[in-house]
Amino acid sequence: MASYKFECLSVSISAEGVAHVEINRPKALNAFNTQTWTEIGECFARFRSDGDVRSVVLSASGRMFTAGLDLKEAAAGPLAKGSDAGANVDVARRGYYHRLHILTFQDAISAVETCDKPVVVVVHGGCLGIGIDLISACDIRVCTEDTYFMVKEVDIGMAADIGTLQRLPKIVGSDSWVREVCYTARKIPSKEAHVVGLVSNVLATKEEAMKHAFELATAIAFKSPVAVVSTKHLLNYSRDHTVREGLEYTAIWNTMAHNSHDMPLAIMSSLQKKKARFPKL
Amino acid sequence: MASYKFECLSVSISAEGVAHVEINRPKALNAFNTQTWTEIGECFARFRSDGDVRSVVLSASGRMFTAGLDLKEAAAGPLAKGSDAGANVDVARRGYYHRLHILTFQDAISAVETCDKPVVVVVHGGCLGIGIDLISACDIRVCTEDTYFMVKEVDIGMAADIGTLQRLPKIVGSDSWVREVCYTARKIPSKEAHVVGLVSNVLATKEEAMKHAFELATAIAFKSPVAVVSTKHLLNYSRDHTVREGLEYTAIWNTMAHNSHDMPLAIMSSLQKKKARFPKL
Amino acid sequence: MASYKFECLSVSISAEGVAHVEINRPKALNAFNTQTWTEIGECFARFRSDGDVRSVVLSASGRMFTAGLDLKEAAAGPLAKGSDAGANVDVARRGYYHRLHILTFQDAISAVETCDKPVVVVVHGGCLGIGIDLISACDIRVCTEDTYFMVKEVDIGMAADIGTLQRLPKIVGSDSWVREVCYTARKIPSKEAHVVGLVSNVLATKEEAMKHAFELATAIAFKSPVAVVSTKHLLNYSRDHTVREGLEYTAIWNTMAHNSHDMPLAIMSSLQKKKARFPKL
Amino acid sequence: MASYKFECLSVSISAEGVAHVEINRPKALNAFNTQTWTEIGECFARFRSDGDVRSVVLSASGRMFTAGLDLKEAAAGPLAKGSDAGANVDVARRGYYHRLHILTFQDAISAVETCDKPVVVVVHGGCLGIGIDLISACDIRVCTEDTYFMVKEVDIGMAADIGTLQRLPKIVGSDSWVREVCYTARKIPSKEAHVVGLVSNVLATKEEAMKHAFELATAIAFKSPVAVVSTKHLLNYSRDHTVREGLEYTAIWNTMAHNSHDMPLAIMSSLQKKKARFPKL
Amino acid sequence: MASYKFECLSVSISAEGVAHVEINRPKALNAFNTQTWTEIGECFARFRSDGDVRSVVLSASGRMFTAGLDLKEAAAGPLAKGSDAGANVDVARRGYYHRLHILTFQDAISAVETCDKPVVVVVHGGCLGIGIDLISACDIRVCTEDTYFMVKEVDIGMAADIGTLQRLPKIVGSDSWVREVCYTARKIPSKEAHVVGLVSNVLATKEEAMKHAFELATAIAFKSPVAVVSTKHLLNYSRDHTVREGLEYTAIWNTMAHNSHDMPLAIMSSLQKKKARFPKL
Amino acid sequence: MASYKFECLSVSISAEGVAHVEINRPKALNAFNTQTWTEIGECFARFRSDGDVRSVVLSASGRMFTAGLDLKEAAAGPLAKGSDAGANVDVARRGYYHRLHILTFQDAISAVETCDKPVVVVVHGGCLGIGIDLISACDIRVCTEDTYFMVKEVDIGMAADIGTLQRLPKIVGSDSWVREVCYTARKIPSKEAHVVGLVSNVLATKEEAMKHAFELATAIAFKSPVAVVSTKHLLNYSRDHTVREGLEYTAIWNTMAHNSHDMPLAIMSSLQKKKARFPKL
Repeated sequence: MASYKFECLSVSISAEGVAHVEINRPKALNAFNTQTWTEIGECFARFRSDGDVRSVVLSASGRMFTAGLDLKEAAAGPLAKGSDAGANVDVARRGYYHRLHILTFQDAISAVETCDKPVVVVVHGGCLGIGIDLISACDIRVCTEDTYFMVKEVDIGMAADIGTLQRLPKIVGSDSWVREVCYTARKIPSKEAHVVGLVSNVLATKEEAMKHAFELATAIAFKSPVAVVSTKHLLNYSRDHTVREGLEYTAIWNTMAHNSHDMPLAIMSSLQKKKARFPKL
Repeated sequence: MASYKFECLSVSISAEGVAHVEINRPKALNAFNTQTWTEIGECFARFRSDGDVRSVVLSASGRMFTAGLDLKEAAAGPLAKGSDAGANVDVARRGYYHRLHILTFQDAISAVETCDKPVVVVVHGGCLGIGIDLISACDIRVCTEDTYFMVKEVDIGMAADIGTLQRLPKIVGSDSWVREVCYTARKIPSKEAHVVGLVSNVLATKEEAMKHAFELATAIAFKSPVAVVSTKHLLNYSRDHTVREGLEYTAIWNTMAHNSHDMPLAIMSSLQKKKARFPKL
Repeated sequence: MASYKFECLSVSISAEGVAHVEINRPKALNAFNTQTWTEIGECFARFRSDGDVRSVVLSASGRMFTAGLDLKEAAAGPLAKGSDAGANVDVARRGYYHRLHILTFQDAISAVETCDKPVVVVVHGGCLGIGIDLISACDIRVCTEDTYFMVKEVDIGMAADIGTLQRLPKIVGSDSWVREVCYTARKIPSKEAHVVGLVSNVLATKEEAMKHAFELATAIAFKSPVAVVSTKHLLNYSRDHTVREGLEYTAIWNTMAHNSHDMPLAIMSSLQKKKARFPKL
Repeated sequence: MASYKFECLSVSISAEGVAHVEINRPKALNAFNTQTWTEIGECFARFRSDGDVRSVVLSASGRMFTAGLDLKEAAAGPLAKGSDAGANVDVARRGYYHRLHILTFQDAISAVETCDKPVVVVVHGGCLGIGIDLISACDIRVCTEDTYFMVKEVDIGMAADIGTLQRLPKIVGSDSWVREVCYTARKIPSKEAHVVGLVSNVLATKEEAMKHAFELATAIAFKSPVAVVSTKHLLNYSRDHTVREGLEYTAIWNTMAHNSHDMPLAIMSSLQKKKARFPKL
Repeated sequence: MASYKFECLSVSISAEGVAHVEINRPKALNAFNTQTWTEIGECFARFRSDGDVRSVVLSASGRMFTAGLDLKEAAAGPLAKGSDAGANVDVARRGYYHRLHILTFQDAISAVETCDKPVVVVVHGGCLGIGIDLISACDIRVCTEDTYFMVKEVDIGMAADIGTLQRLPKIVGSDSWVREVCYTARKIPSKEAHVVGLVSNVLATKEEAMKHAFELATAIAFKSPVAVVSTKHLLNYSRDHTVREGLEYTAIWNTMAHNSHDMPLAIMSSLQKKKARFPKL
Repeated sequence: MASYKFECLSVSISAEGVAHVEINRPKALNAFNTQTWTEIGECFARFRSDGDVRSVVLSASGRMFTAGLDLKEAAAGPLAKGSDAGANVDVARRGYYHRLHILTFQDAISAVETCDKPVVVVVHGGCLGIGIDLISACDIRVCTEDTYFMVKEVDIGMAADIGTLQRLPKIVGSDSWVREVCYTARKIPSKEAHVVGLVSNVLATKEEAMKHAFELATAIAFKSPVAVVSTKHLLNYSRDHTVREGLEYTAIWNTMAHNSHDMPLAIMSSLQKKKARFPKL
């Protein structure tokens, strides 16, 4: 059985197969240091091949979801990676290793997308900078009324590089809005996030938001896990391909998935109006 | 002149060039058996090269638009296709033919998209499973107030494989919403379908919805057919390509289309405030 | 210093780095003749390498934003380009040059997108035909209450070919709506444009809209120009690539951009709650 | 059992599963009229789902492989297709139907590629114009010493449009050579075709070439048909995708194919140095 | 009529429509300074819309084809471009303008490819560095026996960035060879260049090579110019797309091109065994 | 300093920066068990960020390069991976984990490509099955006269799935040859491998081949490492993208790499005819 002991994350898995991942650095307002995003990458990578996990709720403890990148750590030098970084002042050489560093960071956040199990994220308080990169990689976003969002990167002199600029325009409807909030880094209140489709629900309190998220995740955990992971995997594949390529890939994928025992079980249960319990993946 | 006699479809073409396709298996709640989707594929493929058809209204008879896949037929074995399916228990061999079967099914539904004539679909009552695949391949979606939609596939233990996962995220604005309804298979009321942009109009009754759809389709039928089919073809091409590639393809396409007599006729009519009647394609 | 004297455009650049481009053919309702779009192409191409320009406001003088293509000029023959166009009646030969003509026109409008500086467009009165192609290439769209939009091309017997069919479906949320307005060329009131996400704000008057646009553009001009042009460039790249390719391109781009002095300056200012002034590009 | 009675083709299938397709219009030097390429499309489409066919030898009767397009038929008007072609002089309308005609022709020749069973083609005498399109869609090309090839299209005033310009540069090594023969339409002797890799063998006589082709095709027919069709399918897919996409598609394809009983049978036979006989697809 | 007066190039156009472009800085061993590649870009861009030019021979005067980049000019600072380059020491700001500089250089060399008229290049003596970028963008390469080639960039501490790494692997057959010569910068004798397919002919002397090139270019100039430019354009398009996309683009392109008067003229001439003279583009 | 202790590999790094990786299971004819390919993946992943490694020679000990996949291990069940594989007989569930297994295997071999340092492989004796996947991911291939190659997978009832079908057609010139050897699994002698371009040199003995490989790798190690890794990285990127995309990516990559101190050092050394020693990455 996979182990989920982490320093910055609290993880538990319910009997129904719902994993709960809580970002747990409340004193630092859940600011992302290297440890935090490394653990997120490892945690969701394990979910991928852990049959006990059927869906995930992601949330954070304390006053807000996250204040963004841990600027203190960043200032102290995560960019200094390299063969002998201290003395290495050649821009191209530093750049070679710095690029690998960015790719590693991106992979950690993308693990939320590639874990194949649906992830419902609950955002509360504030969600800034890298927080937007993270929630954009989740499947379903809900938030509390008091939440505000900020694509904050431009305010620290850089373009967002961990996924916001790739995923945000593909998950909401208005490109004019996306560009406005990315160029100005202004506050986005929860209501506006709902209207543009960034979140699909706004709940009054964090308790209600958590309850709603667990209900969603539990409902998903009771579906056939073959059907669910196939749906997530194919939605992600299809986003990045033409309709024709998406269809062709789906045909070969489902050729395999249709061999599951879940189809007859699901159809039978449906006809008998009974709730089936599907074996784990 | 092309013939449009079908078993599961009723087809008529108005003097203005509006074809009406009605799915006509009301007793089975318009459930999709092989005959139904095969005929849809054939019907729309014919539309592609039938100059008498300038636009299409698609609707269904009876209590609801469609209850989805015909599970009885499915249970009886459409997957059993192959060289000697009965005895053939090798998974890879069965898979080879099953994949061809899925591709054939997909092509039939995609014919709605590739027919080049705009298709307005009127949804009423319920629209489940394969119904979502079908309406996602149409151009303009309207529905009645009493309509509900369900991406039902996950409830029969499989991922949608005839187009929903490819097209749905590209025709509505909120990805969070798309994933929620695909993972949970929950009911989507007409009003919600309107807010997310799945349908562009909700009408009180089926009569009003049909009237609205025919008005739209007739308005389109009075435009230059060269302009109309070019617009549909280029929208579909551009969805699947970069902006730059879309522009380059459009340049060569319009180099041909600009040779039409419709341009001077349209400009003249526009200047003279007269309604032009363009020759058929 | 780059020169911005044009016949059909008025251009000025503020001390803060906000360029104002006004389309200035009010008597012709700002109809696009060859001179107009050629100048737009040249103007925005210069912006690309002019460090004094950090953001742009685009608007038009007179009664409306634009009535669309200058049909009089079009009728007099922009299609007649070629080696010896007068006598050249061979369709393929004329087509060879006509395609080059369309590509040149497209490039001029695409310069708004490729200039790398964010462009806020203020639409008032009416915006028809080529006007939609143009505003779709801008970053942020705002309009006045009295504005209406029309994808007018189908009414002159052709498919839009300067960008509308490529960009419009990628900047609003509802594909059903996009197709309806492209096939029917019907009037779209400002309020509807807001609901579908085409514009992100509707202001009561042109004065208010201009004020709002300049506030946005000025706010952007006060951000790090490295961060801002990177964000625009990466948003455009990512729209046309898979998420994975977008991330990989971003990693190498930011490897360069992170070397900017703006990052420490921005972080310092942020910590000290002071407003930084970043050097121009 | 699929029927293979054709007017312009002779088809037979050996006990080992090798289909022999002979183009059989020797008096017309196997010039391609509509009937010929339509039959090629139908024949190879049937092969795709005919388990009795494991590999194919394609050859032609008479003095040469093919003289190319049937110019007499072409002159008499295959381009005149359309809703009412006779009277229809609008270039754009004719173009709409003419494009569909080209696509249909292309699909017929591409059926050789998409049939999934390897095709060995024997070329003798001459192979001109559409003949190059056809053999480029085959898997393995052998020819006789007296064979010459010509990419003839430029000599009838057009660019090759049935596959030569797409496939030829991807099946030989020297682009400089490809362009020279496409721009000049010059004769390519068999020896030169071998050096550039267009054919992988040159045999002295047609008899020897046929013998060699049947030996190859029979050897292939004795391999696991699951392994063989998978290999062809994946080679074609990978040609058109990045290495990474090719690998990912292969992973899901082989997940299905590895379930075949052929793997244990093949490994067992290999260890026992016995020749296995694999069941048909 | 287009003007072709240049400082570093000598250009003449024959009555048959063969343009001869000679790089003419023999004292500097035709090293590429900014003037040279800027003129190449302008010259070939003009060819694109000059009907008098049907094909091109490119060669160089003096001892060798080119010694590569003009290192003296490079050392003096072509990278210093920017808004106020002298004082601008911010790496990201310099990088912004330096990237535009590389793109401009690339566009100039790519004009050889995008001019649509076939280009035969004659290489003699030596061809180093940027010379390889240039000849890789030509259509047909021939050389003299005394020629040697060197992908020299790695020896000046950089990766080739004007086209060699993109085009070279796609125009020769052996990737192992490509990588060896790109990593080692070693001398490639003419004979080896022939065997790997980089050149399609090696001639004893420059005179013979020029004669051969003009014969080829003249033969091409006597073909239908519609057929020739279509063939070049479609070969380039197809190199960069899947076979299926190449076919679809070809279908719409040829729908236009088939309207040429050249097809009946070519077929008639072919049947009558007469040499046609096609009107210029 | 990175550690390179492995069970199945012997690794050493020369003072010049040439790493030597020897596959070291001679008794098993270097058959690939899981341990072997896992170690290859780890070893080359470390090379990526190890500045002490500038180029690599890959070879194998004993009688032959490799006999291919370790069939004994494969038979004992590497496919049985999963949450509780023993009891899990559902094809779809097993397939989910089996696909992850194939992807992991592919990633290990692709590490040879993504390590960014050029890899020269020396093949001797025989190279079968997975051996072809491996050497196709290397940069430069040399072999001994007694070497034979076999794309063996079809003989164990499957299609090659670790890279052969993706890379082999892109590294040799003749597609007809590729398909013949993939469908028939026949022996390819060293001389034939040379003619088609699979290897760029054939040496008489293993000693000579090793000597040649080390000379090549050492020559590469003396070039600027910035130039060398950039060249490899850009060649791989460009293989998988259009020429235009390859150029644009190169422009941004080199904007960073041009900041290296290696360029002035290389140019100076070149002018002074001295051999420079570039600092490690």
